[in-house]
Amino acid sequence: MNKLKKDITWKEKLHEIIYEADTKEGKLFDVILLIAIIASILLVILESVKSFDAKYHNFLNISEWIITILFSLEYILRIVSIKKPFKYIFSFYGIIDFLSTVPKYLSFILIGTHSLVALRALRLLRVFRILKLGRYIGASNNLMLALKASRAKIAVFLFFVVIVCIILGTVMYMIEGEENGFTNIPVSIYWAIVTLTTVGFGDIAPQTPLGQFIASIIMILGYSIIAIPTGIVSSEIASANAKPDLNTQSCPNCLKEKHKAKAEFCYNCGSILNP
Amino acid sequence: MNKLKKDITWKEKLHEIIYEADTKEGKLFDVILLIAIIASILLVILESVKSFDAKYHNFLNISEWIITILFSLEYILRIVSIKKPFKYIFSFYGIIDFLSTVPKYLSFILIGTHSLVALRALRLLRVFRILKLGRYIGASNNLMLALKASRAKIAVFLFFVVIVCIILGTVMYMIEGEENGFTNIPVSIYWAIVTLTTVGFGDIAPQTPLGQFIASIIMILGYSIIAIPTGIVSSEIASANAKPDLNTQSCPNCLKEKHKAKAEFCYNCGSILNP
Amino acid sequence: MNKLKKDITWKEKLHEIIYEADTKEGKLFDVILLIAIIASILLVILESVKSFDAKYHNFLNISEWIITILFSLEYILRIVSIKKPFKYIFSFYGIIDFLSTVPKYLSFILIGTHSLVALRALRLLRVFRILKLGRYIGASNNLMLALKASRAKIAVFLFFVVIVCIILGTVMYMIEGEENGFTNIPVSIYWAIVTLTTVGFGDIAPQTPLGQFIASIIMILGYSIIAIPTGIVSSEIASANAKPDLNTQSCPNCLKEKHKAKAEFCYNCGSILNP
Amino acid sequence: MNKLKKDITWKEKLHEIIYEADTKEGKLFDVILLIAIIASILLVILESVKSFDAKYHNFLNISEWIITILFSLEYILRIVSIKKPFKYIFSFYGIIDFLSTVPKYLSFILIGTHSLVALRALRLLRVFRILKLGRYIGASNNLMLALKASRAKIAVFLFFVVIVCIILGTVMYMIEGEENGFTNIPVSIYWAIVTLTTVGFGDIAPQTPLGQFIASIIMILGYSIIAIPTGIVSSEIASANAKPDLNTQSCPNCLKEKHKAKAEFCYNCGSILNP
Repeated sequence: MNKLKKDITWKEKLHEIIYEADTKEGKLFDVILLIAIIASILLVILESVKSFDAKYHNFLNISEWIITILFSLEYILRIVSIKKPFKYIFSFYGIIDFLSTVPKYLSFILIGTHSLVALRALRLLRVFRILKLGRYIGASNNLMLALKASRAKIAVFLFFVVIVCIILGTVMYMIEGEENGFTNIPVSIYWAIVTLTTVGFGDIAPQTPLGQFIASIIMILGYSIIAIPTGIVSSEIASANAKPDLNTQSCPNCLKEKHKAKAEFCYNCGSILNP
Repeated sequence: MNKLKKDITWKEKLHEIIYEADTKEGKLFDVILLIAIIASILLVILESVKSFDAKYHNFLNISEWIITILFSLEYILRIVSIKKPFKYIFSFYGIIDFLSTVPKYLSFILIGTHSLVALRALRLLRVFRILKLGRYIGASNNLMLALKASRAKIAVFLFFVVIVCIILGTVMYMIEGEENGFTNIPVSIYWAIVTLTTVGFGDIAPQTPLGQFIASIIMILGYSIIAIPTGIVSSEIASANAKPDLNTQSCPNCLKEKHKAKAEFCYNCGSILNP
Repeated sequence: MNKLKKDITWKEKLHEIIYEADTKEGKLFDVILLIAIIASILLVILESVKSFDAKYHNFLNISEWIITILFSLEYILRIVSIKKPFKYIFSFYGIIDFLSTVPKYLSFILIGTHSLVALRALRLLRVFRILKLGRYIGASNNLMLALKASRAKIAVFLFFVVIVCIILGTVMYMIEGEENGFTNIPVSIYWAIVTLTTVGFGDIAPQTPLGQFIASIIMILGYSIIAIPTGIVSSEIASANAKPDLNTQSCPNCLKEKHKAKAEFCYNCGSILNP
Repeated sequence: MNKLKKDITWKEKLHEIIYEADTKEGKLFDVILLIAIIASILLVILESVKSFDAKYHNFLNISEWIITILFSLEYILRIVSIKKPFKYIFSFYGIIDFLSTVPKYLSFILIGTHSLVALRALRLLRVFRILKLGRYIGASNNLMLALKASRAKIAVFLFFVVIVCIILGTVMYMIEGEENGFTNIPVSIYWAIVTLTTVGFGDIAPQTPLGQFIASIIMILGYSIIAIPTGIVSSEIASANAKPDLNTQSCPNCLKEKHKAKAEFCYNCGSILNP
């Protein structure tokens, strides 16, 4: 029984270190994890640079194995220390942890899966978990509230943009045709998105006068409708900020409302508020 | 007489299913239509991909004929079931329904009209009719109100942008000339639009120092004036969200409305409000 | 004496027709002028299209001469009918009227000035004078007020953008050098403007890793600071719209202020306002 | 002692001229400095234009030496006239003054450091010190307040953008690979930044259907999230402009401030305000 209790304590301790950041050990664990993630990302990036990889291949490979084993250990400890392991395994971050660790082992066993190793870059997403970025955005978190409030409107806007791009892409395919680079409708839709979002790579560009005329309309459309998401987010943030610093009391004497949050006396008649 | 009544009932039933979405059958009809539209668009897109079309040409062709006949049937039923058929035929969606169905038959009769078949993509516009997207935008529909309110201002802005592009395009044609890709004034105007809207394909780019200088001014202009439509839409949304501090009472004496929220007397005749 | 009076009347009549739009004749003159301007611009554009010009050269040339003579007549009448001719001649529109008429005569006398003929496109600017676009923007003209109010701030912003582009352009010239297309500092500054304004032609693009890193910073900078002019204009429009529909009266009885603009009775005590 | 006093006075006088702009001499010094900076920048720019440098090399070189010596003198005088020289030397502008002067001397001694001479363009940053641009932005300096207030949020936004670009860049490297121009991950990240910020050079562009699909998502993402910094800055400017409805009185009894504009009694202690 004593052993069982000790075992539970050990798991709880581990859970506290890994999943929480309130204790000294928890914070230290987060900092080490952050460094390991950044080191891991740097390794992924440097490995892809052929001239660098040629010189330091062994160093990169060994470092990568060390970090992969560390992350594997962390993954196992996360599963062990949590009460409902499957909830973690199939959570967003659980899947990311798995996807960013397994490919290295696969590349050892199966040849041809080497390119999957770059999936390790997904580890970077974990930075959001560690930093809990929300708290930097502002105490009242108005920005997040505004973004959530405008999510539905932005989705409708994007749905509209995508449909416009499909139709205009098809029209451009009919006008320009294969000989001018609009080889098929998916490529033409891709071009319409490139143009409407004002990115404009220029790898495909209309050559016929009619095509250039339609392209001009798409560009002016894209240049104008960017005002819509911006307007939505702006006004949502503004209305989220507009919560005035007033309480909901009414004066017991003159019944006036909208007193300052910290007021103890009515600004109209001087009676004591909240007797 | 009994037969006539039955006939009318049958037409009314059909009208309810096709044009409305309140009944079970009406909703089912809309869902089937939505699936047919998406399937049709997928067929248009896949047909344009040469490698796919080569393999599955027969499948695509037969599927396309099935869907075209279905849409033709729907078009005929729409005309039959409505009281004023011409109002439908010459309405926006009526023309789209026609344009997106006829080309397939034409391609059967006339050789060389095959490219028109892509007009079927116009069917996608019908998605807006089915989904009635407005209701997703928000209960009070403030966004739509704001866009309608800012329509005139945006139109003036676009008119200004187009005139600026015509003038600057002509100036660039004079400066750069044919040898640098500005082959004629329409092409130069197209280039000015590409540049002002910050799309920047790069298929045409100024080569002379003076041309690059004018281009820089166009770019900075385009980068700055995007603030105008954005500002218009933002403030319109904001003012649509800002419900004025007025109550909905009407004066019992003079029937004036729009009294201040806390008003106890009519601002017009001095009568007591809400006695 | 009688003749002198008649002469003045004739001039005044002409002034009314040409410079004003209140009379029937004045409006007709404006409409004819508008048509002439658009016809003139179309001629300029069509003339520049080589294939079109080859076919219809004579038609274009004769039409052009007719319109040029009409505009010359209008220019002379404008000078004759105004009391202070020099004020008109050296005004913004006076210079445009001159610049857009003279080149055609020059091209007749001097060979080699043909390209200047495209200056006729400047006539398009006169459209703004005729249409008096301000009145379409909104009764209260809040947009114009907002733009005027934010002019100084936008100018400082653009000054900042230009200085940043000069410095970053020079830095990129040092990093990339002539071999990668950054042939000299003016070209590099041009590239920096192309990049910061998110136009991105791609005719010049950084090739070295360091250059691409600096370019990334410029792009992210340009992507972020576009928020500044947008924010300025948005808030200026918002504050221009926020003029509430309230008068500045105070009630003679209870001294309450902020009555509705058309109120005749105090909303608080029911006394008559403005006795 | 008299000499010492005189010496101090001389230094103080110099300090007033160089560091301040209140006296006539101080203003003159600033104007001369401004002209020297602009002349210096023009020299840097013209020197980089090969065709110009070939013709006027001697003129440019001599002018450059004159200006460099003038700036060196100014640098020495700045150090001499200030009480804490090291504070200036290691300040932002002190380092710029040094970096923009030394390379010319280095180019005289060491061959191969010639390209560093372009560092003189850094002098342009000093324009901000001289012009004290803040005062042009507006009396209340609301814009600067708004930008400072939104700094943290913008930083989080940029951090998010960079992480998204690293992940999407890596994904694109895996999909497109070296054969389509995505030679390594840093280049792919650079491409992701080019695309997300809607710059779109087009020097690298996705070729595979899947790559173009992911690119479309990046572009639509970039087109949408630009609403976030814009919304932040807009609302911050708006809230900086919205002076709260508070008066500037302090309570005669408890000295509390920030009373409501119409308050007659202190909200904290109930004393009568402004008896």
